Amino acid sequence: MQSRRWPDDPDAARGPATDPRVARSRAVIVETASVHFLEHGYLAANLDEIAHQADVSKRTIYNLYGDKERLFRAILAESLDTAERYAEEVTSGLGDADDVEVALRAAGLRLAQAVFGGRVVPLRRLLIGEVARFPDLAGEYYQRAPQRVMASIAEALARFDERGALRMDDPVIAAEHFAFLVIGASLDRALFASAERAPMTGEVEARARAGVDTFLRAYEASR
Amino acid sequence: MQSRRWPDDPDAARGPATDPRVARSRAVIVETASVHFLEHGYLAANLDEIAHQADVSKRTIYNLYGDKERLFRAILAESLDTAERYAEEVTSGLGDADDVEVALRAAGLRLAQAVFGGRVVPLRRLLIGEVARFPDLAGEYYQRAPQRVMASIAEALARFDERGALRMDDPVIAAEHFAFLVIGASLDRALFASAERAPMTGEVEARARAGVDTFLRAYEASR
Repeated sequence: MQSRRWPDDPDAARGPATDPRVARSRAVIVETASVHFLEHGYLAANLDEIAHQADVSKRTIYNLYGDKERLFRAILAESLDTAERYAEEVTSGLGDADDVEVALRAAGLRLAQAVFGGRVVPLRRLLIGEVARFPDLAGEYYQRAPQRVMASIAEALARFDERGALRMDDPVIAAEHFAFLVIGASLDRALFASAERAPMTGEVEARARAGVDTFLRAYEASR
Repeated sequence: MQSRRWPDDPDAARGPATDPRVARSRAVIVETASVHFLEHGYLAANLDEIAHQADVSKRTIYNLYGDKERLFRAILAESLDTAERYAEEVTSGLGDADDVEVALRAAGLRLAQAVFGGRVVPLRRLLIGEVARFPDLAGEYYQRAPQRVMASIAEALARFDERGALRMDDPVIAAEHFAFLVIGASLDRALFASAERAPMTGEVEARARAGVDTFLRAYEASR
């Protein structure tokens, strides 16, 4: 039994898993629990169901993660890492592009695809619904994902401003305008929509394009 | 005892309350339960605590509302009515104004004040967190509040377009751009922030003004 291999103190379980079976169990538990927490929320989540779906014993979950809250925090730590990686990719190379219009159109589409392609919307719902119970997680997500995207868009826009391609008073405000013109309406709609009423990819992309158009009309130096 | 005056079937309790003591109990329960649900969410909400805080018996709550879900739905029905009234006020008279810039600046500030002044942010958090359990309520809110605001902004913008003060391809998209330039970034930040980290009124209003500036640069016909 795996539980014999791990001490009951969950802190001891944070070290690298040298046993490949333990590593596999962890990966399966994290994936299964992610889907389960995103679907049911924190309070309604059920460790018995997670154990059953992951095909491990509840004891294994307790041995590896401690309790429901620690499992939840472990899941969220993974999700926040993923969100931060996305945030970095979305804007990579943006400020170095030659053609500001081409660069912003590509960044707008990448932003829309990153937000609506993966688990960002259910993750946002979960964190927003749990702000009162887990204010630290909501705050950390906001810093590591949306705020990070905004900061690197601001940096890129400031470089276009220096080169004379765009003009703006405040690159941070301009970055907010870019992001919310591109995904604001689609994201707000998606947060309140059950899966079958969520905005379609075509609508999201059309709105992203219209958002970039408006941004360029307001900020392009040549207009 | 009030419970004698009302049948156990909660549907019967929906009629007008002729007894002023019952009307008073209802008003106190609705207000107390609103604050409680907004703070704790649906699952963690506790009818004993609501009864205690409202200074009524739990029996009275059951007699007037049936069960926790019906109480929740009654509370949300009130909140949605309030949200819809706000939505109507925000844009009243907008399209008839003489000066498009003055009118849009006033509408931008009213929109920001309506969203950040009352209970809109906690209500949005509650509904977003409960989309899986109560998709109908989230959908109804979205239709009656944000979508309604957007529709009446679109109508007003279309009239400015006809009069030659603004130019746009699609008034619905333009209305989304107006709303998310004005409140998008502030609202996103507020949804993830606990009370002490919520954006300040001054920041919200500065962002609303900057959003209107950008909207005018993109959409004013004379530029």
